[in-house]
Amino acid sequence: MTGKEEKVIVIETTIDDMNPEIYSYILDKLIKEGALDAYTMPVYMKKNRPANLLSVICREEKLEMLLQLIFRETTTLGVRIREEKRRVLFRSFEKVSTPWGEVNIKIGRAGENDSEMLQIAPEYEECKTISEGCGVPLKKVYTAALLAFAELKKE
Amino acid sequence: MTGKEEKVIVIETTIDDMNPEIYSYILDKLIKEGALDAYTMPVYMKKNRPANLLSVICREEKLEMLLQLIFRETTTLGVRIREEKRRVLFRSFEKVSTPWGEVNIKIGRAGENDSEMLQIAPEYEECKTISEGCGVPLKKVYTAALLAFAELKKE
Amino acid sequence: MTGKEEKVIVIETTIDDMNPEIYSYILDKLIKEGALDAYTMPVYMKKNRPANLLSVICREEKLEMLLQLIFRETTTLGVRIREEKRRVLFRSFEKVSTPWGEVNIKIGRAGENDSEMLQIAPEYEECKTISEGCGVPLKKVYTAALLAFAELKKE
Amino acid sequence: MTGKEEKVIVIETTIDDMNPEIYSYILDKLIKEGALDAYTMPVYMKKNRPANLLSVICREEKLEMLLQLIFRETTTLGVRIREEKRRVLFRSFEKVSTPWGEVNIKIGRAGENDSEMLQIAPEYEECKTISEGCGVPLKKVYTAALLAFAELKKE
Amino acid sequence: MTGKEEKVIVIETTIDDMNPEIYSYILDKLIKEGALDAYTMPVYMKKNRPANLLSVICREEKLEMLLQLIFRETTTLGVRIREEKRRVLFRSFEKVSTPWGEVNIKIGRAGENDSEMLQIAPEYEECKTISEGCGVPLKKVYTAALLAFAELKKE
Amino acid sequence: MTGKEEKVIVIETTIDDMNPEIYSYILDKLIKEGALDAYTMPVYMKKNRPANLLSVICREEKLEMLLQLIFRETTTLGVRIREEKRRVLFRSFEKVSTPWGEVNIKIGRAGENDSEMLQIAPEYEECKTISEGCGVPLKKVYTAALLAFAELKKE
Repeated sequence: MTGKEEKVIVIETTIDDMNPEIYSYILDKLIKEGALDAYTMPVYMKKNRPANLLSVICREEKLEMLLQLIFRETTTLGVRIREEKRRVLFRSFEKVSTPWGEVNIKIGRAGENDSEMLQIAPEYEECKTISEGCGVPLKKVYTAALLAFAELKKE
Repeated sequence: MTGKEEKVIVIETTIDDMNPEIYSYILDKLIKEGALDAYTMPVYMKKNRPANLLSVICREEKLEMLLQLIFRETTTLGVRIREEKRRVLFRSFEKVSTPWGEVNIKIGRAGENDSEMLQIAPEYEECKTISEGCGVPLKKVYTAALLAFAELKKE
Repeated sequence: MTGKEEKVIVIETTIDDMNPEIYSYILDKLIKEGALDAYTMPVYMKKNRPANLLSVICREEKLEMLLQLIFRETTTLGVRIREEKRRVLFRSFEKVSTPWGEVNIKIGRAGENDSEMLQIAPEYEECKTISEGCGVPLKKVYTAALLAFAELKKE
Repeated sequence: MTGKEEKVIVIETTIDDMNPEIYSYILDKLIKEGALDAYTMPVYMKKNRPANLLSVICREEKLEMLLQLIFRETTTLGVRIREEKRRVLFRSFEKVSTPWGEVNIKIGRAGENDSEMLQIAPEYEECKTISEGCGVPLKKVYTAALLAFAELKKE
Repeated sequence: MTGKEEKVIVIETTIDDMNPEIYSYILDKLIKEGALDAYTMPVYMKKNRPANLLSVICREEKLEMLLQLIFRETTTLGVRIREEKRRVLFRSFEKVSTPWGEVNIKIGRAGENDSEMLQIAPEYEECKTISEGCGVPLKKVYTAALLAFAELKKE
Repeated sequence: MTGKEEKVIVIETTIDDMNPEIYSYILDKLIKEGALDAYTMPVYMKKNRPANLLSVICREEKLEMLLQLIFRETTTLGVRIREEKRRVLFRSFEKVSTPWGEVNIKIGRAGENDSEMLQIAPEYEECKTISEGCGVPLKKVYTAALLAFAELKKE
């Protein structure tokens, strides 16, 4: 089996009467309160309304609390709830040096002790901090981190 | 628990070979025949086809009838069906007076007898009728209804 | 030259703080007041706001009036305006008989007196009226009208 | 009951850090490896990221193999998995002659031996081959195939 | 004439080979460097690539500097540039008191000295600060500010 | 000035009554006939129609020919045309060796003889060929090509 499995809850609601400025605020708040993920999709409702579908992923113990948050902060009158499985890779981190500072590389593996690395991703926030601090394009920092990691593994 | 819960069915199908003029007609028809909600999302299929995902929410007793409708009216050869829970607020209505006529306010509460109002929404169709009849911008009617409701609750 | 040309004005504005219920109302109103076309697209603004880009196409003499309408009815504080050319086919109509009633076919040609028909489209509203009146799927009425037109041209 | 039913698995994952060039390649590969369907939708993540939701539909026996493929070829660290039912029409094919060659018509019926045809769709790839080979607009080949089928059924 | 007019430049480019994490960073950076607005739209390119169209609005004197930024920070090899007019309302601000603190209301008028207010919008960032500081739903702060403004104007 | 400039023509049309299967075919055909770029965006028309905006970029000498193609192959009755400038980087190619074969790297520079490389992108089609031929994930081939290029430049 690739990765490990857990049960998650998906909450979804189409919102067609809310000032869109509120989405940014509510997405952040949902994550802060324990949602595993939260995102919106453009959806087209009856009566010609370009609305948004809000999706929130969480563990079961957070469900009631996040529902309260959604009903308090958005304009929805009803949401849908379903159970799904979530399969995630085993994650670890390794630090590498770029010309402008250190960056963590997030690594994903199918099994906890596998040698094969399926995912190799420099940490976005760290790259961004370097980019803004040193005036280097973000894409350059990102590539430099990947190169440094490749060097490290060659040895 | 916030709101009350019921079981609903979600029907979904990606449609990549239908004249988009038909969506307006089918969305209306689905609602008229008893669907709780119906909407589309832009989706991008294999072979470079910008298609639409049609989603229909209904109670179980309407499932077979709505499936027949979908197969008769759209071009789909297959749909997917799943069960979800739906959590809805307790709804009530109160009438308020705006300078141009009366409007109902839809109110959502976590419990049937809660005093806290989580949602306060002027009825769209009534505001629109006033707007078109009196030549007042719809956003102005909407705000006037909210103000009238706030006045009412202050007393 | 394929078709004939005229000058048109395109008005565009991104709206990120308006209740989406208002779009349906404003699109209809813009068309009624003389816009040639009006539509929205999902757009993603800074600060994580899923907004909409409203586009309105009109002739120059309608510009100021439609601008007033947009500023009165939407929440925008500013719009952009540009000039474009519009190339349209020469249009004519022919009536055909389907088993459930007559339908007009809209025909598009490159030149006013060309025999080649580039576009052949049954009128949507007429097909829809038949479909709703006779309980026949809309797609079936549509195809029947196309077949009747093909018959007519064979003779 | 309209059509026949089977159990399917839906795999979904939001991907916000992958070069979009890879989607075309992975959609094709998923279909080739046995997915029943695969598509993407635009989704807006936290931190202002315009990402994509990848959805893959498959039978249960293909699940582990397709998961491996997704983890190897995309940049995702986790996916969600759910079970749904899939209701499909009974399909059959009939060949018709157009002025430029033969085309198969895909037919969908509610029951295996029903006479009513719910769907009638010329095979896209065959129409495209004719269109490219004979220099006829694809839409014309498509309509000609529909007309030929109507002729056939009239007799 | 409704509002005042100025010339602006629109820069657009479709990007189909960039890690979407970079959009958030580049949108912020473009605004900080003087762009009037910047946003993305989902677009479907040839070869089945779900890409993004990046649009940047600026005054002419910022054009070369923003072009440099776009070429340095994104992966694009080419952009398109056009001139448009921008019509904006005359803006002013008035302060109102909500139960949780003061909020500025942004007002839009057709003429500098017009009495009619076309737009009335509480400042989002100020409402958000109150909402996060006092634990009140953002939508409630927003409505309270609108009500306070209505009170003020009644006197 | 970053890059070099040329005049281009943008053709746009919203299409709300065409089978979406045709988009893939027409995008390819437009590119083959000389369009510089061609893409679609989801757009929401009046009367609840989820349509597509087709955009085609070309040089002026191709305009009439591409217009004929669009009118013949799509269902549109009218298109809009505007002139824009196009600013493109100076491009060159360098070949690198990956463990599975050679790949060209596309390089973009602000000036023809600049040493600074603004863009460094492995050729997608070549990477894909290797990936499919050798059974290596496409993202791995892509990264290997970037690493090989970095090695080359270090020397």
